[in-house]
Amino acid sequence: VLPPTRGKLCVTTDSVVEGVHFRTPPFTLEDVGYKALAVNLSDLAAMGAYPRWFLCAIAMPRAFGAREVKALASGMSSLARGQRIALAGGNFTSARELSITITAAGTTRKPLLRSGGHPGDLLYVSGTLGDARLGLEPGARLAARRKQRRPQPRVDLGLLASRFASAAIDLSDGLAQDLRHLCDASGTGAEVRVDLLPRSLADEATALAGGEDYELLLAIPPTRQAAFERACAAAREKVTRIGHLGGAHLRFLRGTHPIPPPPGFDHFRPAVHFKSAPPRPPSKRARPRI
Amino acid sequence: VLPPTRGKLCVTTDSVVEGVHFRTPPFTLEDVGYKALAVNLSDLAAMGAYPRWFLCAIAMPRAFGAREVKALASGMSSLARGQRIALAGGNFTSARELSITITAAGTTRKPLLRSGGHPGDLLYVSGTLGDARLGLEPGARLAARRKQRRPQPRVDLGLLASRFASAAIDLSDGLAQDLRHLCDASGTGAEVRVDLLPRSLADEATALAGGEDYELLLAIPPTRQAAFERACAAAREKVTRIGHLGGAHLRFLRGTHPIPPPPGFDHFRPAVHFKSAPPRPPSKRARPRI
Repeated sequence: VLPPTRGKLCVTTDSVVEGVHFRTPPFTLEDVGYKALAVNLSDLAAMGAYPRWFLCAIAMPRAFGAREVKALASGMSSLARGQRIALAGGNFTSARELSITITAAGTTRKPLLRSGGHPGDLLYVSGTLGDARLGLEPGARLAARRKQRRPQPRVDLGLLASRFASAAIDLSDGLAQDLRHLCDASGTGAEVRVDLLPRSLADEATALAGGEDYELLLAIPPTRQAAFERACAAAREKVTRIGHLGGAHLRFLRGTHPIPPPPGFDHFRPAVHFKSAPPRPPSKRARPRI
Repeated sequence: VLPPTRGKLCVTTDSVVEGVHFRTPPFTLEDVGYKALAVNLSDLAAMGAYPRWFLCAIAMPRAFGAREVKALASGMSSLARGQRIALAGGNFTSARELSITITAAGTTRKPLLRSGGHPGDLLYVSGTLGDARLGLEPGARLAARRKQRRPQPRVDLGLLASRFASAAIDLSDGLAQDLRHLCDASGTGAEVRVDLLPRSLADEATALAGGEDYELLLAIPPTRQAAFERACAAAREKVTRIGHLGGAHLRFLRGTHPIPPPPGFDHFRPAVHFKSAPPRPPSKRARPRI
């Protein structure tokens, strides 16, 4: 039972499934618990919401005991404490394979949406891209493995960006794919300079197409550009300008030369994946308003 | 993104997993979609809450296509429409076995809890008990199979009961087990007359121990008994008085003769299962109140 909130409530639900989103090893159970919460916090970050509470439904093999549950909880609570989000309840059930489904809620006066972008808005991404994808490969460097297993949801940046951005999305499916989601929702095309993508360990193609970075992609109106960049610098949030919205299609350029879209542009994810089903119209049940 | 609510928000999450909570067949995918929502609505009913919105996370085999998803949705939406609860979002992922995790939210000014019971309160149950358990057996009668696959969450009764009851719980684990949950939370024992249990197809032992009836168990203060019974009769809600709270233990009687508790009293459920983790203390993050 949760108290009423004055702001709007942003809710999201996302699952991590063994064999689809992780394997143990290389993931530890602590990593699994952490990442299950992180992917949901990343959704709240993209809405510019303050994390408030989450529910955690765990389906796990019968062989799991207190030790395994504590390991999951330990990884999850380390992140929950750091982000000041409260566990409000949950469910345990048995299953053949381990999966965790978390529902997270945050509040905000004015949520960032995917659909608010306009032609001319400048595109920024946080952090560096492609490292999480590299972290899946055998012999990957520690920094890449860490980015894959312990992504840092950009909650503080989302809160900052909500004062400036017209639209936002978190990068779970890869920049190219998630940019398309934002463009489709905003009803505009975009132009991205692949030579400007912020990279640390990954090559350009991996930065463009690799998923699970859980960085933020932000659309900033040109009139807010200077103030946004100043605020990011003051808050030590690393953001990189990579292009702008506009036109009828997604175009990728290296310098001034158009390049083809990444291969398999529509098919990165292991499964069909939606996050923004439209709510149904308000209920007509005769009931007291509460 | 959901509008602010004036009442308290009651949230619950529960999963149904293939091979644990259902098999297909005998369940159709329509049944699975229906029941995944029904078990969550039953939790809201037990809190006396108005159903408002739900999120639906589906993990499904890669072989599933539009036809299978439509079948799940069809069963789910038939119940959602009837109970006027809106789908607000969700997630799809692949998995080896089908599972659905739903998070449902309702609102109420004064939620019914498990913990509000007092010694002397009268115990009532809705409907008839044990039929859902019978419905799992080969050759079960249609009414029992229907109760197993299409349980009717007692939302209207929960709303009615919230004006009278001191405590409530829905019967997912079986009467004996769920009564224990209510008694533990309320800090009291209870006395139940097994010869008074409302039965249709089931014998006494199955009515007492069989799970998944998704009926409500209500504790009604004696001063509210007459008004509660009148309100139930007026609303055509079938409830049966089966005992009362009090004493230090759970006691089961046939007439005036004590009988032993049902076998396996602690072990009905396929997996460890909790629903009421206490929320953490309020956040101390320095953030604007919204």
